[in-house]
Amino acid sequence: MSILVVGSVALDTIRTPFGSCSEELGGSAAYFSVAAGHFDKVNMVAVVGTDFPNEHVEFFKDRGIYLDGLQRMEGKTFRWHGEYGFELGEAKSLQTCVNVFEHFHPVIPEKFKTSDYVFLANIDPSLQLEVLEQVGNPKFVACDTMNFWIMGKRQELLRTIQRVDALILNDAEARQLTGEPNLLKAARNITNMGPKMVIIKKGEHGALLITPEFKFSAPAYPVELLFDPTGAGDSFAGGFVGFMARCGECCEDSLRLAVMYGTVMASFAVERFGVKRLAELDTFSILDRLKELKRLSEFEIQAM
Amino acid sequence: MSILVVGSVALDTIRTPFGSCSEELGGSAAYFSVAAGHFDKVNMVAVVGTDFPNEHVEFFKDRGIYLDGLQRMEGKTFRWHGEYGFELGEAKSLQTCVNVFEHFHPVIPEKFKTSDYVFLANIDPSLQLEVLEQVGNPKFVACDTMNFWIMGKRQELLRTIQRVDALILNDAEARQLTGEPNLLKAARNITNMGPKMVIIKKGEHGALLITPEFKFSAPAYPVELLFDPTGAGDSFAGGFVGFMARCGECCEDSLRLAVMYGTVMASFAVERFGVKRLAELDTFSILDRLKELKRLSEFEIQAM
Repeated sequence: MSILVVGSVALDTIRTPFGSCSEELGGSAAYFSVAAGHFDKVNMVAVVGTDFPNEHVEFFKDRGIYLDGLQRMEGKTFRWHGEYGFELGEAKSLQTCVNVFEHFHPVIPEKFKTSDYVFLANIDPSLQLEVLEQVGNPKFVACDTMNFWIMGKRQELLRTIQRVDALILNDAEARQLTGEPNLLKAARNITNMGPKMVIIKKGEHGALLITPEFKFSAPAYPVELLFDPTGAGDSFAGGFVGFMARCGECCEDSLRLAVMYGTVMASFAVERFGVKRLAELDTFSILDRLKELKRLSEFEIQAM
Repeated sequence: MSILVVGSVALDTIRTPFGSCSEELGGSAAYFSVAAGHFDKVNMVAVVGTDFPNEHVEFFKDRGIYLDGLQRMEGKTFRWHGEYGFELGEAKSLQTCVNVFEHFHPVIPEKFKTSDYVFLANIDPSLQLEVLEQVGNPKFVACDTMNFWIMGKRQELLRTIQRVDALILNDAEARQLTGEPNLLKAARNITNMGPKMVIIKKGEHGALLITPEFKFSAPAYPVELLFDPTGAGDSFAGGFVGFMARCGECCEDSLRLAVMYGTVMASFAVERFGVKRLAELDTFSILDRLKELKRLSEFEIQAM
């Protein structure tokens, strides 16, 4: 199977209580691709400026990520400047320079159009729709979004959501999208909007997968060395969609496990700035952490 | 085995977005006893005023809760008046009339002193210490506390904590007690203060059990009909200590399961005002929910 991702490639400047980085390779498509690349072939569609360092292009290529859809436009690459407080909760955006991303329209290369698995990263829902218009008939489409689009482009977002299999968002966004504080009811409202399933990410509290047929609660990996939460959500999506593509079968068991692979990839991503930690992983380290997570939430029933 | 609980018995007046109740039987010792009473014999030490309705005394007796330690003092019973917003997060205390509780000093009846399992509910840590001075050599002591005591009686609290096996508190309290935002590090700090283990309750996000030897992450039961969160923590403690007493063996497996029984009891408590929902449970309904929780977080590993 192959995976198509459409999202951002950025140069991030980040400060956390534990350190800082400057012009680090980031963006939703970058985190997703490096995470998903451990599972299957990834076709990336994104845009960078003429200033985008060639070493990053080589880095993607070395990881087997197909870049036929990576446009290089006149101008500067998308830059984000953010800061996290001691609690490492929500980032404070100090500066967002969309640069070449402002005029970006995704063009899906012919050979990417038959990708079976599609991830629409957190971009303008109008662009997400443009992607769906261009691809054939993928087996599985997952979609991310954020408060900015829920507020500002609600109608477009609802049209996109209608056509995806899985909506991936965080708890605050699920509440905002539905106006429902109870997460279970919020999830049910969302599946009534079209998606077959919803994944609600809860940061340090894990994730919930909710479908009309079953519910799955994934624990978070208790990260002691939480360094920089940037990209955790996209890395989660990379593990989730990556495993689904690798496995090729969409059933309850594979979905549960896919959420866990997502949890594993997110837990690695936050241990270092940028995508470096994700890049150095091998199959053994991924499986070891998965086993650790299984043990973390395991218990045997014994009658009272 | 038998269980000793020292805490409050109160008459609660509560408003939530879903309804209201007036002078409902509540208080930490009440919730704990009714929950733990499903597992083992409970010896209650608390205080009520002369106005305390006899039907509540009969209710406790009917449930096999031993009331030799329930003092009836001249004056009015502890009353709490609280309100929850639509998010059902933290309660807004509208009025707290401690009444007879102001001069309460726990007196442990002779035949309660050999209780093997002790739960020190959320009361002044000086009173918790008074309890520990009176009991013999219990097998297991669990202790709850809150922000009020962490702020106002820190030294007394630290002296109590030093002598307990398990400290049970919520995530905000764990952070407040230690000044450490990372929950795992906060938990480690707490085990350095004396307790063999810490249970961090995270409300709708489940609970963490952390010991120097292992970590366990319990999912929350996804309650759709969350009605009134009052007493959830004490019901959790009732299931946890109740199962530990029933089982009689303190090992990793029993501790994991005890946290799950705690989760089950808390999930029932919040479905109705007061202790009514807890009181009507039978072994089958408790086990059914436990099985549901097991399925909720189950996954099988399959290599990538």
